[in-house]
Amino acid sequence: MVTRAVDLRSDTVTKPTDTMRAAMATAEVDDDVLCYDPTAFCLEMEMARITGKEAGLFVPSGTMGNLISVLVHCEIRGSEVILGDNSHIHIYENGGISTIGGVHPKTVKNNKDGTMDIDLIEAAIRDPRGEIVFPTTRLICLENTHANSGGRCLSEEYIDRVGELAKSHGLKLHIDGARIFNASVALGVPVHRLVQAADSVSVCLSKGLGAPVGSVIVGSKTFIAKARRLRKTLGGGMRQIGIICAAALVALQENVGKLEADHKNAKILADGLNHIKGLRALPAETNIIFFDILEDSKLTAEKLCENLKEHGVLLMQEGPSRIRAVLHHQISEDDVQYTLSRFQQALSGAENENCK
Amino acid sequence: MVTRAVDLRSDTVTKPTDTMRAAMATAEVDDDVLCYDPTAFCLEMEMARITGKEAGLFVPSGTMGNLISVLVHCEIRGSEVILGDNSHIHIYENGGISTIGGVHPKTVKNNKDGTMDIDLIEAAIRDPRGEIVFPTTRLICLENTHANSGGRCLSEEYIDRVGELAKSHGLKLHIDGARIFNASVALGVPVHRLVQAADSVSVCLSKGLGAPVGSVIVGSKTFIAKARRLRKTLGGGMRQIGIICAAALVALQENVGKLEADHKNAKILADGLNHIKGLRALPAETNIIFFDILEDSKLTAEKLCENLKEHGVLLMQEGPSRIRAVLHHQISEDDVQYTLSRFQQALSGAENENCK
Amino acid sequence: MVTRAVDLRSDTVTKPTDTMRAAMATAEVDDDVLCYDPTAFCLEMEMARITGKEAGLFVPSGTMGNLISVLVHCEIRGSEVILGDNSHIHIYENGGISTIGGVHPKTVKNNKDGTMDIDLIEAAIRDPRGEIVFPTTRLICLENTHANSGGRCLSEEYIDRVGELAKSHGLKLHIDGARIFNASVALGVPVHRLVQAADSVSVCLSKGLGAPVGSVIVGSKTFIAKARRLRKTLGGGMRQIGIICAAALVALQENVGKLEADHKNAKILADGLNHIKGLRALPAETNIIFFDILEDSKLTAEKLCENLKEHGVLLMQEGPSRIRAVLHHQISEDDVQYTLSRFQQALSGAENENCK
Amino acid sequence: MVTRAVDLRSDTVTKPTDTMRAAMATAEVDDDVLCYDPTAFCLEMEMARITGKEAGLFVPSGTMGNLISVLVHCEIRGSEVILGDNSHIHIYENGGISTIGGVHPKTVKNNKDGTMDIDLIEAAIRDPRGEIVFPTTRLICLENTHANSGGRCLSEEYIDRVGELAKSHGLKLHIDGARIFNASVALGVPVHRLVQAADSVSVCLSKGLGAPVGSVIVGSKTFIAKARRLRKTLGGGMRQIGIICAAALVALQENVGKLEADHKNAKILADGLNHIKGLRALPAETNIIFFDILEDSKLTAEKLCENLKEHGVLLMQEGPSRIRAVLHHQISEDDVQYTLSRFQQALSGAENENCK
Repeated sequence: MVTRAVDLRSDTVTKPTDTMRAAMATAEVDDDVLCYDPTAFCLEMEMARITGKEAGLFVPSGTMGNLISVLVHCEIRGSEVILGDNSHIHIYENGGISTIGGVHPKTVKNNKDGTMDIDLIEAAIRDPRGEIVFPTTRLICLENTHANSGGRCLSEEYIDRVGELAKSHGLKLHIDGARIFNASVALGVPVHRLVQAADSVSVCLSKGLGAPVGSVIVGSKTFIAKARRLRKTLGGGMRQIGIICAAALVALQENVGKLEADHKNAKILADGLNHIKGLRALPAETNIIFFDILEDSKLTAEKLCENLKEHGVLLMQEGPSRIRAVLHHQISEDDVQYTLSRFQQALSGAENENCK
Repeated sequence: MVTRAVDLRSDTVTKPTDTMRAAMATAEVDDDVLCYDPTAFCLEMEMARITGKEAGLFVPSGTMGNLISVLVHCEIRGSEVILGDNSHIHIYENGGISTIGGVHPKTVKNNKDGTMDIDLIEAAIRDPRGEIVFPTTRLICLENTHANSGGRCLSEEYIDRVGELAKSHGLKLHIDGARIFNASVALGVPVHRLVQAADSVSVCLSKGLGAPVGSVIVGSKTFIAKARRLRKTLGGGMRQIGIICAAALVALQENVGKLEADHKNAKILADGLNHIKGLRALPAETNIIFFDILEDSKLTAEKLCENLKEHGVLLMQEGPSRIRAVLHHQISEDDVQYTLSRFQQALSGAENENCK
Repeated sequence: MVTRAVDLRSDTVTKPTDTMRAAMATAEVDDDVLCYDPTAFCLEMEMARITGKEAGLFVPSGTMGNLISVLVHCEIRGSEVILGDNSHIHIYENGGISTIGGVHPKTVKNNKDGTMDIDLIEAAIRDPRGEIVFPTTRLICLENTHANSGGRCLSEEYIDRVGELAKSHGLKLHIDGARIFNASVALGVPVHRLVQAADSVSVCLSKGLGAPVGSVIVGSKTFIAKARRLRKTLGGGMRQIGIICAAALVALQENVGKLEADHKNAKILADGLNHIKGLRALPAETNIIFFDILEDSKLTAEKLCENLKEHGVLLMQEGPSRIRAVLHHQISEDDVQYTLSRFQQALSGAENENCK
Repeated sequence: MVTRAVDLRSDTVTKPTDTMRAAMATAEVDDDVLCYDPTAFCLEMEMARITGKEAGLFVPSGTMGNLISVLVHCEIRGSEVILGDNSHIHIYENGGISTIGGVHPKTVKNNKDGTMDIDLIEAAIRDPRGEIVFPTTRLICLENTHANSGGRCLSEEYIDRVGELAKSHGLKLHIDGARIFNASVALGVPVHRLVQAADSVSVCLSKGLGAPVGSVIVGSKTFIAKARRLRKTLGGGMRQIGIICAAALVALQENVGKLEADHKNAKILADGLNHIKGLRALPAETNIIFFDILEDSKLTAEKLCENLKEHGVLLMQEGPSRIRAVLHHQISEDDVQYTLSRFQQALSGAENENCK
């Protein structure tokens, strides 16, 4: 019997808090398509301020945030975007930039820390001198934190260098900042400084920040005007969306401060996993942990996930021997200890079973 | 000084009621991308039941509902859709079915009552016998009620005939049912009967039904499975969306019964306008009224809208001499009388001014 | 037994003449993708000169010429083109501007003479003032001669007016000039004057001009540079294409002068058909004739076409009672008389059969 | 003064031979859009026979051949193709499969011999079990010979293994066989055996085979029927194209036998370059040679190309220190010796210049 629920599948699983629910119940709203919803407008302004950009736009999801951003920067047919071969946009967004937007992706290898080598990025830029067989490079995308490398942070120095490269070639820079607040907290660098070199940023409200729904994209006023129109085209324009935005404003106020605890819990979990025989966790810089089941273990990732699920611990299987756990504000240190105990038991049980 | 606000621009402008806000504040929710949000699921099931279809899917907007529906039915490159030249999809949805979906539209003239002549639809179907210069007709779209003709209803007989035509040519039928509940109430025909011949329907929650955000598309399980994936591609997959769906469930319970009053108010408004010198209203079948300023009047539509705005009555200008008013559950008969009095005053004022 | 072949299906059926074959056999050529083929270059320059434009580009077909032109003018995602509802681009080119190019078409009714009313074109232009639900109008397309209206000519006055309208709204004007030489000859107006207002023109070499393959598009140097790149994308860049261009240069020299005879033959044929009981031909301005089988006739278009095919006269059936015949330089006046005699016989035969 | 022209830029630069020109001058032709051109039909049948496929289709270029093939296999929106990160389709075809076709590319690293590791291909296949965030893998593309690895051949064993992998996952296999005849000759394996596992192959006529223009794609009858329609959409349908196809038929008869000599000349050239101080050539398996200027040399690739151009030897610069040379039937062994002597002189000259 499950007596406890520790949902570590993602930081998207958080439930709205009482404060958020209260805010939603009293939010001032209006038709955000016909004119502007005042609460949405307030959220957009606030995110623009935090990121140091001119304007913001609420969108239903991080996927739409990235899709719109790439498509606005690549509004001319025949565009190519340079992005990481292990990036969220390339792997987990249905290939929408191509299948919906007709943008051609050129991938560069993501290093283990989520960066791409600057010289490889440069080498991927198409020669614009009349080469009629090439698409036109128009955009570079970074991801910070980089999810698939285990929530690793890109430093402001690195981003600035990519920004300079982009500028020197007349390209735009977009940052998939789904977890940019985690990067900011982990690095001790304000968000606006981290994204200073970016022409646009997509920031998720429903991941570490714990809001129920949505993302905000930020950029210049021109960029946002085009983004607003494209949002309508995609069907992302919504009516009294202030309801949702009210919760997001609460999230910004209440939950940014909790990210540090998530990171601490992630480190405790990673350390604990590394002390369990048969497991090896990647370094945990923020709230995401990837860990592998070592070859000599008797358990597959699938079985281990099932085993823990029976005890109320939900994880995300990433491969035959790789598992992901994500911390968030609704996971306490106590939950982490409970989780570790379940792991311990699952693996020693497997060991014992094997001994029979 | 404005002492009163009568917002007749659209039925999308309604504010969530106290019951809706209460429902949102207590809604049971979960991550609708990772698994399913229980309240979203409940709403989808309820709409499937009402429309008599196998399954439903919540989407952020009617535009996305139509976009997904057209793109699922036209999933093969080289598809053509037949739709009204005055339909919402063709005129007011950014041409997204082409610019995002690569679907070629073939328009048929919309009659004044929102229908298209059956023989014209049939003539628009491309000959599939090997004509290599034609795109492939795959879909017919109807709109009920038909907004741009002034909220006119398509009867079940008409829709059935179009459905038979579609079937006999191996085509699908999609109904843009943004205001299908208005049609159902006005015709006295249950929604499921009205859309019986349709392979998919898009129903708006945030128009006459008064929910703050969203639409539901319904169809077969296969259709909805494809739609769910495409919703993710477009960025319409959202997390704890049960918040919004809770309000929509309240709307379905509380507001369908109010549509009849909206229609009655529309008739009162239309009759009243027809009694004002210089104005001529189109027949009001449901909650939308189009009316024209006659040629001998001294006012343009723009000036008339401005004039009434000063007195708190908001209208939508549709052309140099055409204005739209839409009734909804937050407009009382008293508001209608107030509106008529403001019209009377505005037009007699213009007359007087002219006399000077 | 067929003793004679009179192929009136289209002016695309002509066989290369001896002069063309000789020119092809001796053409100077080079790799037109790597650098430039000298004969292709010569053809492109010559067509630019004739049309009074800066530059030209050889393309494999009129369809590609139109596709490239529309896509270059509508290079930004979210574009809309205004074109005739009975135009070749809209009806006979697979909807490629949408299905391949993502351009949204807005059709305007084609009058019987191939024109569209200027005020209807103007009404179709989307209001650019921030209407976020509209695609952006970027292009107007005309077709001269207008094939589906029976080869009718657009006058320079009409085209100039459309050009002024386009200019005043910041739009481009493209002319599908597949048969622009026929229009020029029929109107007695030089080609460069006829297309003066156009930003681009697509001219077919393999229709009335009788070359075996290809079209040339013309426009500004910037337009052609973009067109060259898009031609490569579509796979229309070819190697030693000078072979084909050599034949086209001969066609320009030898066959423009023969178009007048084609038009004369078309008139003889149309007049003759109008004198046959049961047939009614539309006015023949150039080399295309549409004619209808009157209701009281005993023959369908399909049967009539079959009947004449048995006697070597090939026609194109356009509908249940409509047939198309196209004159070209390999049809003599004698062929026309033979054709008329076959029609006479076919229809009186049908009459007689009926009398039995 | 240039007294000699040795054009090694590509095998696309060959001029049509006298036999080809004679064939073009006498080719039987017809309108290949309206019905079929008999010579085009003959060429398509012949290529189908050689490749062991059901049917063939002439297309203007290898780029269109690949574009059509990928788009037919990926006709459903949301498709992904797996292809080499160094493949011609990914690098040199304008990203057309995405920008025109909306297909999302997933690249796998090309090894030095042009292969991709089978397990990497398998890992790139998306899990079809309901993962709504993934596009759908539908196609694997190989390239044989592989141009960017220096004309390396893929063996039938390797291709068969990829074919089995594709089949076991329900995927299609397309081979970009621009130079499949070179692979066949170098491996001593008939073309039909080499491409046995492929669902479609694109074969270039204007590369090693020396025809002036065009490619043929082959596959099942169903595939070719869809390809024919898509060719029309792209504007690749041409009229009396038999002219060009006649030259291609000559190329198939006369030039396949000359490929062995091209390969021998390539080896002589590569060996010779390897004996010149400062140069290092990659292994030459077929008719393409890539060679690098070693770091201690005083010349850049650009300067070396310029130097040789002055003496009539044309090369293709591939990078700051890399040059490509391609052999073809209009390059004799004597031309190769002349080329080597020019290289020798250019590099010793550079050396001497340095000594001053």
